[in-house]
Amino acid sequence: MGLPVTSGRVRMLKPLLAAGFRGLSAAARRERPRGLVYERHGEPAQVLSLKDIHLAELGDFGVHVKMISAPVNPSDINMIQGTYAILPDLPAIGGNEGVGQVIETGSQVTSLKSGDLVILADSGLGTWRTEAVFGEETLLKIPQEIPLSCAATLSVNPCTAYRMLSDFGILKPGDSVIQNAANSGVGQAVIQIAAARGIKTINVVRDRPNLHQLVERLKSLGADHVITEETLRKPEIKELFKKIPQPKLALNGVGGKSATELLRHLCHKGTMVTYGGMSKQPVPVPVSALIFKNVKLCGFWITQWKRENARNKEQLRDMIGELCDLIRKGLLVAPACQEIPLVDYRAALEASMKPYVSAKQILLM
Amino acid sequence: MGLPVTSGRVRMLKPLLAAGFRGLSAAARRERPRGLVYERHGEPAQVLSLKDIHLAELGDFGVHVKMISAPVNPSDINMIQGTYAILPDLPAIGGNEGVGQVIETGSQVTSLKSGDLVILADSGLGTWRTEAVFGEETLLKIPQEIPLSCAATLSVNPCTAYRMLSDFGILKPGDSVIQNAANSGVGQAVIQIAAARGIKTINVVRDRPNLHQLVERLKSLGADHVITEETLRKPEIKELFKKIPQPKLALNGVGGKSATELLRHLCHKGTMVTYGGMSKQPVPVPVSALIFKNVKLCGFWITQWKRENARNKEQLRDMIGELCDLIRKGLLVAPACQEIPLVDYRAALEASMKPYVSAKQILLM
Repeated sequence: MGLPVTSGRVRMLKPLLAAGFRGLSAAARRERPRGLVYERHGEPAQVLSLKDIHLAELGDFGVHVKMISAPVNPSDINMIQGTYAILPDLPAIGGNEGVGQVIETGSQVTSLKSGDLVILADSGLGTWRTEAVFGEETLLKIPQEIPLSCAATLSVNPCTAYRMLSDFGILKPGDSVIQNAANSGVGQAVIQIAAARGIKTINVVRDRPNLHQLVERLKSLGADHVITEETLRKPEIKELFKKIPQPKLALNGVGGKSATELLRHLCHKGTMVTYGGMSKQPVPVPVSALIFKNVKLCGFWITQWKRENARNKEQLRDMIGELCDLIRKGLLVAPACQEIPLVDYRAALEASMKPYVSAKQILLM
Repeated sequence: MGLPVTSGRVRMLKPLLAAGFRGLSAAARRERPRGLVYERHGEPAQVLSLKDIHLAELGDFGVHVKMISAPVNPSDINMIQGTYAILPDLPAIGGNEGVGQVIETGSQVTSLKSGDLVILADSGLGTWRTEAVFGEETLLKIPQEIPLSCAATLSVNPCTAYRMLSDFGILKPGDSVIQNAANSGVGQAVIQIAAARGIKTINVVRDRPNLHQLVERLKSLGADHVITEETLRKPEIKELFKKIPQPKLALNGVGGKSATELLRHLCHKGTMVTYGGMSKQPVPVPVSALIFKNVKLCGFWITQWKRENARNKEQLRDMIGELCDLIRKGLLVAPACQEIPLVDYRAALEASMKPYVSAKQILLM
């Protein structure tokens, strides 16, 4: 708490690298590994506690990783609450993504070496901890020059945005996409990846006191249009849609009427992909949109995608490589982050569950 | 009115054929062509009137057709009310499907000859009339031995059922399909076409006084399971789904909660196709069904399908050929029909708009 909100570009890996691998490893080994453990489902602040943890044996294929930082995502919260679609065996360690550095590798490990920066290729492995031994196949190496906040938040939201912009119909430069939850982690990644591809974005946000600031920030990321849900419902909005091609794709992270509004502006035969339901409301779909406008609705879940593509890790590597390229070119930045030491995890959890939170909480290990 | 409800198998073309083409043609020409014309949108019984109509010139490519019979479909009613997705220029003649016999053909017409039995390949041409001159390309020849009630009702409902069972994922024998509106024209065709392909159907109907009769009738058509919407909501229904494979496809002609219930029983990655919205309610789609169950929603509209496939009429001919084969084998019968002379059209319209009507109203020209 009280730490400055960083832009996601400031804190680089250098201090860590400068410490040198051997020094780091020794330091890491001086402290006993600790993690945020929960033994039953419930409200995170109540059921999580910071405990000493036992590391798995390194074996031939294990990779000993010193975790550097890990974000608090809404799905992490839901998983601890027990309301998520997949739940780990208990007791479990919280957190599903994050960045770490390899300390030591098993004798048969070929794709990683000590010093490598890694993120996780799968979820459910528990990232809110100081150290872990992961299987080689669950890790992905990323370039050293990637800002840590980008690396820590790379494997869920930007990957979700990337796949939704890639896998649901062919979007050409000049085409447009409409999305709600435009200020969410996924929403901001959509804006930036779309802009890099020359795809126009119509970004719907909830009205709020500091709306003007938000509009400016999203535009600075590359958003073409930023409008409130209230404005989207007004008849005048038709003027906007005369100037730009009708969206072929709608991305829905909210559900409820907000999603129905996206459908209303989707082009004939367009697709709406749902990846979240922040309003906790079902999506009311007008029958006429399905029959006469021939729109399609489907869902996207990055966890499922990764599992289905686990055998062919190449597609995952290609995506991470492309996203890292965008990051290096300054075309993809992490959302504003609030970095909080692991011991202050209760403050991070509390902040992450407040409405209209723009800064992502990042636990520093 | 007062005419017996036929099974769709009784009334054949023979009396008409026995009269001979020349005789028929002469008879047809004795009477002035008449049709059910509307000059403004509104309630069908109020805005339709039976009037003398002017036939188009036969020209080189025209086909003069004596209409035999034409059904009253819900979409015909909506088109007259002005609430349908496509509306004809006014004044217009009601009706979108039906069967007729060719009286005379233009000099350049090659695919049809006088005496041929024809149905319409497109909608919006006005079938509630005694005679018409249609373009050759708008007509499809069908075999003479098809019962007239089947022929008159072939081009909308059975075609919708056929395409929905064919075009949305590969259904193998033994797979199952769940549908609501199982007693509708489409629903009955779905039961029969699915049964002919070895696909199991779970058929959801509304509770009603004569439920037992309805269940028996749908089972006699080949329905594997017939259950009410109330039963579908009960926890005991899980037992049924243990015995049969979870449906890969759901067909929704109702909308509202009825559609949500179908989604609940759809298998992982299943598809729900919406072709109607009898409840006039949108479909509430749980966000979790989209994200975690990965279900897809889309719509189907036979009018659109025909227009998109108009250039390649072969697919349409193949489908009609297959459906006629099923009819000849006794595997596809028309829904129960109430035949009503054209002059009594008001009674037919009134009967067609009553709830829980099982008999389709067919106008005899």
